[in-house]
Amino acid sequence: MSGWVTVAGLGPGREDLVTPEVTAALAEATDIVGYIPYVARIAPREGLTLHPTDNRVELDRATHALEMAAEGRRVVVVSSGDPGVFAMASALFEALEAHPEHAGTEIRILPGITAMLAAAAAAGAPLGHDFCAINLSDNLKPFEILEKRLRHAARGDFAMAFYNPRSKSRPHQFTRVLEILREECEPGRLILFARAVTTPEQAISVVELRDATPEMADMRTVVLVGNAATRRVGPWVYTPRGVAP
Amino acid sequence: MSGWVTVAGLGPGREDLVTPEVTAALAEATDIVGYIPYVARIAPREGLTLHPTDNRVELDRATHALEMAAEGRRVVVVSSGDPGVFAMASALFEALEAHPEHAGTEIRILPGITAMLAAAAAAGAPLGHDFCAINLSDNLKPFEILEKRLRHAARGDFAMAFYNPRSKSRPHQFTRVLEILREECEPGRLILFARAVTTPEQAISVVELRDATPEMADMRTVVLVGNAATRRVGPWVYTPRGVAP
Repeated sequence: MSGWVTVAGLGPGREDLVTPEVTAALAEATDIVGYIPYVARIAPREGLTLHPTDNRVELDRATHALEMAAEGRRVVVVSSGDPGVFAMASALFEALEAHPEHAGTEIRILPGITAMLAAAAAAGAPLGHDFCAINLSDNLKPFEILEKRLRHAARGDFAMAFYNPRSKSRPHQFTRVLEILREECEPGRLILFARAVTTPEQAISVVELRDATPEMADMRTVVLVGNAATRRVGPWVYTPRGVAP
Repeated sequence: MSGWVTVAGLGPGREDLVTPEVTAALAEATDIVGYIPYVARIAPREGLTLHPTDNRVELDRATHALEMAAEGRRVVVVSSGDPGVFAMASALFEALEAHPEHAGTEIRILPGITAMLAAAAAAGAPLGHDFCAINLSDNLKPFEILEKRLRHAARGDFAMAFYNPRSKSRPHQFTRVLEILREECEPGRLILFARAVTTPEQAISVVELRDATPEMADMRTVVLVGNAATRRVGPWVYTPRGVAP
């Protein structure tokens, strides 16, 4: 039997947000590869080997998946959210480029509900007009590039979604991000902190930019910033579909 | 029995990309409201009334949903893709704002797999780094705003996803969008045209920007533009996770 690698998005957390396509792929797998908390979401069963690995070893993990497929294993690499949004799909293709001996591997990428869209749905429709998705982690990108992108996103009046806003190893970076936003946007701009969306620990807070503090975000938080027209209606936050001429 | 309105994303087309959460909401509905081709995806059953309506009546449709909920109906407003991405969620909140008599309505927004992420998964991982989602329809936005956003997105070196790139009523606009991209990006920039993703008619083509023509897109196409680092590996297109310092 020939092996394959499938990179599957498990969605933001709740099981009824996992697509049937992903559920079917998991049922066919012999091996599950991924970051520890994501692999922990997969129920053990006979014939299935779980390979949980730590954060920041994405390339090793992807290479391991390709190697197992070459041995005939059916490997699902699990990501939270969508695998193509700051997750394992790009890492798999980087590994494929670095290891041309695996060029013939059968590969599939299965989309999932990404955190920013689950957070937006829980809050209303804050990304209802043009928007940007930005990874605030500087592990893989210098801060100057991040700053440039933030300023262009703000000057283009895009709504924004920030992934990985804050971690113990970079406690001051999100402080600087908020400063840049305050330089570019009006103080009443709405900003949403959505933590652990769709899980029992879900917590969403909406504040004006002037009142946002770095402590409002951690690594389980996705941050959404409205555009200039984003507003509240009752308990909801939404961005109108149109821009007045 | 009290009524409610749920806005649900049906995903890009294939049924195994509909989340179980959405399937459960559809099973509880008494009424389905939406654009004709999306309502056509819902199987008729006893006790369920289908209300298909034409394009460009989003506000009327949303108001109708609120009115039916006030009468105790359980209404699902269906969107393709994700309801919060250039779809019905914002229209519902616009209707809610215009009709404060419906302020107490029980509302839920259920996320779905949006077209750009299904297209990205089918092609590899072209949105694997920071990216923008832009609606090219100018029904609700002047072209000058669109042009400004395109230039900021390009100068920030964001990958981009374009929804509604082309229609019979605006045949020349996408021509102008390609011209702007050529002014801002190098001629070898990869651009993907993903038509009817996940359906039997799915067709994906990848070309360099210099070779892109307006006819490559229609209203069933989502267009993805890579960033400066986006590349091919075998049949795949991906954007690396990092930016070299």
